[in-house]
Amino acid sequence: TREIKLAVVAGDGIGPEVVAEGLKVLDAALAGTDVSVSTTAFDLGADRWHRTGETLTDADLEAIREHDAILLGAIGHPSVPSGVLERGLLLKLRFALDHYVNLRPSRLYPGVPTPLAAPGDVDFVVVREGTEGPYVGNGGAIRVGTPAEVANEVSVNTAYGVERVVRDAFARAHARPRKKLTLVHKHNVLVHAGHLWRRTVEAVGTEYPEVAVDYAHVDAATIYLVTDPARFDVIVTDNLFGDILTDLAAAITGGIGLAASGNINPEGTTPSMFEPVHGSAPDIAGQGKADPTATVLSVSLLLEHLGLDAPARAIADAVAADIAERDGTPRSTTTVGDALVARVSG
Amino acid sequence: TREIKLAVVAGDGIGPEVVAEGLKVLDAALAGTDVSVSTTAFDLGADRWHRTGETLTDADLEAIREHDAILLGAIGHPSVPSGVLERGLLLKLRFALDHYVNLRPSRLYPGVPTPLAAPGDVDFVVVREGTEGPYVGNGGAIRVGTPAEVANEVSVNTAYGVERVVRDAFARAHARPRKKLTLVHKHNVLVHAGHLWRRTVEAVGTEYPEVAVDYAHVDAATIYLVTDPARFDVIVTDNLFGDILTDLAAAITGGIGLAASGNINPEGTTPSMFEPVHGSAPDIAGQGKADPTATVLSVSLLLEHLGLDAPARAIADAVAADIAERDGTPRSTTTVGDALVARVSG
Ligand SMILES: CC(C)[C@H](C(=O)O)[C@@H](O)C(=O)O
Ligand SMILES: CC(C)[C@H](C(=O)O)[C@@H](O)C(=O)O
Repeated sequence: TREIKLAVVAGDGIGPEVVAEGLKVLDAALAGTDVSVSTTAFDLGADRWHRTGETLTDADLEAIREHDAILLGAIGHPSVPSGVLERGLLLKLRFALDHYVNLRPSRLYPGVPTPLAAPGDVDFVVVREGTEGPYVGNGGAIRVGTPAEVANEVSVNTAYGVERVVRDAFARAHARPRKKLTLVHKHNVLVHAGHLWRRTVEAVGTEYPEVAVDYAHVDAATIYLVTDPARFDVIVTDNLFGDILTDLAAAITGGIGLAASGNINPEGTTPSMFEPVHGSAPDIAGQGKADPTATVLSVSLLLEHLGLDAPARAIADAVAADIAERDGTPRSTTTVGDALVARVSG
Repeated sequence: TREIKLAVVAGDGIGPEVVAEGLKVLDAALAGTDVSVSTTAFDLGADRWHRTGETLTDADLEAIREHDAILLGAIGHPSVPSGVLERGLLLKLRFALDHYVNLRPSRLYPGVPTPLAAPGDVDFVVVREGTEGPYVGNGGAIRVGTPAEVANEVSVNTAYGVERVVRDAFARAHARPRKKLTLVHKHNVLVHAGHLWRRTVEAVGTEYPEVAVDYAHVDAATIYLVTDPARFDVIVTDNLFGDILTDLAAAITGGIGLAASGNINPEGTTPSMFEPVHGSAPDIAGQGKADPTATVLSVSLLLEHLGLDAPARAIADAVAADIAERDGTPRSTTTVGDALVARVSG
């Protein structure tokens, strides 16, 4: 029997509610297999910060490293100054654990309400770079609060960092039936970073002659996402553009209540982290209203990452079947979780 | 009689075609008034660069400065390396002429096809900062083309630059019936720039107690633009976020064929520049297929900026009436222009 050691960061707001359902479905999917899961709960997020002033200590990080994967609910609360938990906890995990592939699939399940009148057959995945770009925290400000203030943000892009994520994206595109890769950037304005991305895609592309490559500026990509999202298969893009595009992608495929993500270290030298794309939604926290589906789908990505394809697929199929039967009646967080458990077990 | 000296940069691709119609409608709107227009054509864009290697010389810029306003078609051609004309001509004009307000109205005219199933009543304006942010060209790269390459892009934000555009946005919000201003940024990640924007909006907001202020992260803003665009009234945001949001805004309100913009220096110390949001579309250039409506609406913004409200409104009304009678039958560039001339004159 194989034991999976799972670090659980339930986090803030609706995080604990959706994570509870995710874990229920995980257990159900592994029942009857020779895989068992042991979980360690990590007390991280707004409460811990208020109590101790800590976001993520070295000891927390070392303990998390001892695990095979991380399931994260949501981080962030209005009572904490903007940026403290995002930079000090969520992004710190992504950076410290070298999660350079931020994987965000978008699929429009049949029957799901979408704001688009004629979405077409939407099934693409965004490979968002996770350890560089404007997210590196290399900005700074001088004369803060005076009329002479200057605040800079620096986007750092390296051949090392771009090449590895582009390679991952090509491999994923190659493994998909349509074999299409779209680079999204803004190389007519951000010429240095943009040209590095472009040259890298061209170079790695020579190793994948079967993969068709195209390019869209980030502004044009948002247009395509609402006028012709079916054109996309795999999108590779930088950290900030990926952040923006994947929220929009979620919106057109049923909302962030359904959008899953994996923060992946493909070499497996560190635990990868799986989390819903949505935030902590403090306005509905504790009311049992949150849709746990995005977390459950993130559990499916987690299992796939660990090579457990059968239970991963069982969960994805259960979600698809559940979604197909939705009629718009609101269901509680646990009702959805129970329904998914029943399908996975049935 | 008042004479308006107009610099005309028709540019590349479909630029000359749509500008020709814009000028026709401009003449029609001013016929019978005591305002006359004299135009100076500037040979700028891909052809000039191929011939001379020049994008925008000091002499060009000085000559343009002698004008009251600029009408620009589109800049960019695949035969020119990415970034050369964008940075060397279009952005150089915006920066050199201190066009710090990049004004982009989005209105869903009745009858216009939109990709959204239930768009609601969409009528907002994006005030995009035009002279700072990641557009400043302060990036650079080392060891280009080697595995050790590092390419940085720097977003520069100053209290001086942010305050003046925020003031402009508040004034615009205050003058509109709904009096609502939304700041869009990403202050949980881009903490230095984001907090400067936030503090500035808070500070200027105290002078506008009637204006309701809210905030959205840029990723969330893209969600709202497809799920509830009617929530927006005035959006103020940085140069890059504004670029992205306004293409998406155009897409949901009938496409970039209808989206107008003004690059404005509110003090009037330099000529402001009016241009369609769309690009040069080289694939359809010379075929008389381009919709000149975005350029015509940009002419309306130009007249409004020059204080000529009646002809500005006549053009906007003509466009609204023309759009209301569209039935999807393709019309040539000149057909649309002629129809708008007829309405403006009639
Ligand atoms: C909370 C925030 C830091 C985060 C990001 O910007 O990456 C979120 O928007 C996401 O997409 O996971
Ligand atoms: C062509 C490009 C430099 C420009 C920009 O990014 O500002 C365009 O996309 C726009 O929105 O006017």
